[in-house]
Amino acid sequence: MSEQVKKPIGIVETVLRDAHQSLIATRMPTEMMLPIIDTMDKVGYHAVECWGGATFDASLRFLKEDPWERLRKLKDGFKNTKLQMLFRGQNILGYRPYADDVVDYFVEKSIANGIDIIRIFDCFNDLRNLQEAVSATSKVKAREGRGHAQVALSYTLGDAYTLDYWVDMAKKVEEMGADSICIKDMAGLLLPYEATKMISAMKGATSLPIELHTHYTSGVASMTYMKAIEAGADIIDCAISPMAMGTSQPATEVMVETFKGTPYDTGYDQNVLAEIADYFRPHRDEWLASGLLNPKVMGVDIKTLLYQVPGGMLSNMVSQLKEQNAEDKYYDVLREIPEVRKDLGEPPLVTPSSQIVGTQAVFNVLMGERYKMATKETKAVLRGEYGQTVKPMNQAVIDKVIPGEERITCRPADLIENELDKLEAEMKEWKQQDEDVLSYALFPQVAVDFFKYRQAQQEKVDMTQADTKNAAYPV
Amino acid sequence: MSEQVKKPIGIVETVLRDAHQSLIATRMPTEMMLPIIDTMDKVGYHAVECWGGATFDASLRFLKEDPWERLRKLKDGFKNTKLQMLFRGQNILGYRPYADDVVDYFVEKSIANGIDIIRIFDCFNDLRNLQEAVSATSKVKAREGRGHAQVALSYTLGDAYTLDYWVDMAKKVEEMGADSICIKDMAGLLLPYEATKMISAMKGATSLPIELHTHYTSGVASMTYMKAIEAGADIIDCAISPMAMGTSQPATEVMVETFKGTPYDTGYDQNVLAEIADYFRPHRDEWLASGLLNPKVMGVDIKTLLYQVPGGMLSNMVSQLKEQNAEDKYYDVLREIPEVRKDLGEPPLVTPSSQIVGTQAVFNVLMGERYKMATKETKAVLRGEYGQTVKPMNQAVIDKVIPGEERITCRPADLIENELDKLEAEMKEWKQQDEDVLSYALFPQVAVDFFKYRQAQQEKVDMTQADTKNAAYPV
Ligand SMILES: [Co+2]
Ligand SMILES: [Co+2]
Repeated sequence: MSEQVKKPIGIVETVLRDAHQSLIATRMPTEMMLPIIDTMDKVGYHAVECWGGATFDASLRFLKEDPWERLRKLKDGFKNTKLQMLFRGQNILGYRPYADDVVDYFVEKSIANGIDIIRIFDCFNDLRNLQEAVSATSKVKAREGRGHAQVALSYTLGDAYTLDYWVDMAKKVEEMGADSICIKDMAGLLLPYEATKMISAMKGATSLPIELHTHYTSGVASMTYMKAIEAGADIIDCAISPMAMGTSQPATEVMVETFKGTPYDTGYDQNVLAEIADYFRPHRDEWLASGLLNPKVMGVDIKTLLYQVPGGMLSNMVSQLKEQNAEDKYYDVLREIPEVRKDLGEPPLVTPSSQIVGTQAVFNVLMGERYKMATKETKAVLRGEYGQTVKPMNQAVIDKVIPGEERITCRPADLIENELDKLEAEMKEWKQQDEDVLSYALFPQVAVDFFKYRQAQQEKVDMTQADTKNAAYPV
Repeated sequence: MSEQVKKPIGIVETVLRDAHQSLIATRMPTEMMLPIIDTMDKVGYHAVECWGGATFDASLRFLKEDPWERLRKLKDGFKNTKLQMLFRGQNILGYRPYADDVVDYFVEKSIANGIDIIRIFDCFNDLRNLQEAVSATSKVKAREGRGHAQVALSYTLGDAYTLDYWVDMAKKVEEMGADSICIKDMAGLLLPYEATKMISAMKGATSLPIELHTHYTSGVASMTYMKAIEAGADIIDCAISPMAMGTSQPATEVMVETFKGTPYDTGYDQNVLAEIADYFRPHRDEWLASGLLNPKVMGVDIKTLLYQVPGGMLSNMVSQLKEQNAEDKYYDVLREIPEVRKDLGEPPLVTPSSQIVGTQAVFNVLMGERYKMATKETKAVLRGEYGQTVKPMNQAVIDKVIPGEERITCRPADLIENELDKLEAEMKEWKQQDEDVLSYALFPQVAVDFFKYRQAQQEKVDMTQADTKNAAYPV
């Protein structure tokens, strides 16, 4: 390969976001991140993924940390490295669709507080659900010179997801003004030689950089990265070795070493990576000892490949069947899942569509009659409230589940009135910074609990620091 | 790739030998193997590795099992699948070189009791140390129609180990009458794109089938298999998923799925593999719970790639330094290792050469003077007692460590008198089957302890089964 032109690949390090979200339920506190940032900043990563996804919720809810404060501290430490976040399209980092004004404001504040690259995805790959976040990012970029909108396509298998589909999506993503494309394979479903075909085809259709994001869950991840890179992928997502493999990403050092001396050489220094690994290794040992890191998530879950559904979806299904004493229906439900998925327009099986399809499949089997009972979420999908699916939904199912109801075909957020002012009004007593309204918008109850906690801490600190003799506070 | 000619690869399943040797200290008892053999026999594996290596010692010593009895039971169950064993050249399965008559007899009895493929290796890749075992296998094959001699070359890195070296070795292995070649990478040092070069070059030099054996220790294993297969490798060694990854092999199901629909398609049935995985998964959980399987061996040990020495060698070194309160000398020893290795003719770093080089390096650093003290093993290597190394040894070191001593250049076993009669004489009181003398030859003390245990068990069983009324035993 020595004659080939050099084409160094970039690596996004996920240890501060996806790796700990996948392995230890998003429980890494900011204080654990800060001591190693200087070293991480020397590597030359394409970016460090360190915010968004479940970290926002987990910070507020479990760690009693202000996520915005975390972001500012990270930005403060990473002088040379871009910061990346994961953004759930119109759902932002929450669990319902928001009005455009909230999306715009969240994007603006994310970049203002330190984010460079915003990875935006939608569980239906309905690009209309991403457009507002992409446009908002581009607006900030035009104004401030910082901000990069990456559109992530949720990878899935199924009749509708042909090479033509992915090629067509790549073109549309470029047309909508995104700065790069990510193939986001949350379940580790993308097989190595499929990656060859897919990435080759997409590279022919777009000039945008292509990033691949997968998980080691099913055991193929490093091979998939290798074939994707050989086919032209530009960037891969990896985690430093003590936080790699299993439900997390391939190990950074392994991919760096693999491509050393090839045209894809990252040029990263293994000694610097070793320092980072040495920092996290004792923490890994503690998490193993405490049970926060379960060795079961470190193994290979081949069921994902066998049944072509995400591992998490299968374990949810098992618990639902157990609750109903119906574990013998496992294979019936397994057969029902692709049927329900087809009825609902064959959406990607990622959160939340995976849960919606899985739960409805359990209902269909347990009730002995398909759609005798439909969940609230199934109804919402059928009404079009989650957006458009790749295939039409089953009219017979629509007629049975939501007879006579109106369905929407517009962008769902077009029906949501701007809501920022209302949210501001609701939470104004707690406001200490502009960003607080966004925390409140995403997790109203959790944010208020956090605000109360924050205030209590401040009062406690203030009291202990108060100069009681002179009845004055230090300046 | 659809136009390419089909070239199905073979998989050797290691769960019954290397996987449990690597993950749970070779502690899988025969009783745990037997219930799943019928299912395993349906897969169509190229072979099942199930005997030899450390299993012989572990059976006798820890499990109180007759390894020959295990082999016969395995042979009984595997009606359609070839059985494979690992054989340490002139050291057979023990820790010293044996006379040729013992080697011959061991080969004969291994095949007679059920082995089809004997993988034979030497820690110096000195083919003279393999010749007797290869010839003995070929002799049985000519006579009985069963038996396959595979020569395994110990993979290592270093100046001497050029592509030319491997090509030359491949030719010599073919000339010596072996039936196939294995590249045996015990430490997971073979990087993916190096595998491309090496396997391509070797395929051009020999028509023998080429098998690749590696471990996931350093995290590259599945990628290395992929590149090796693309370059023409015929067979890879894998372990069923619950016993795969970490210090074990890549997962069987993952490699099967990866190559499905390609010219390399194994044709194995994932449903049968899933049954096998379902059988071992609860055992894995038990071993994790009991601590026999340490989650630490499931991670990625990147140090192997960084320092190009096997992970086990580094951990030995750390314990030796700890004992001497000299952990600050870690990097000094790390630098000394390649120097000692060069002095000793640059042997592969595999058991036992890795320990010999590592310990001598520790001595050289701690004594403050190189070779002020030399281990018994270093002296033996310098005398030529382990065989010939790829490069000449350092004359100045020879003069310092074994001044005036005679060195041997012949095949070491040429100096060992036939010893089978003597061994027979020593153990005849315990003999219940022909094979017992071989158990005794390899592990005299352990074997005698086992023979005593066996006899005690038999007497106990006999007594409880005795028809005490009629003072007669059942027939
Ligand atoms: Co992810
Ligand atoms: Co091995």
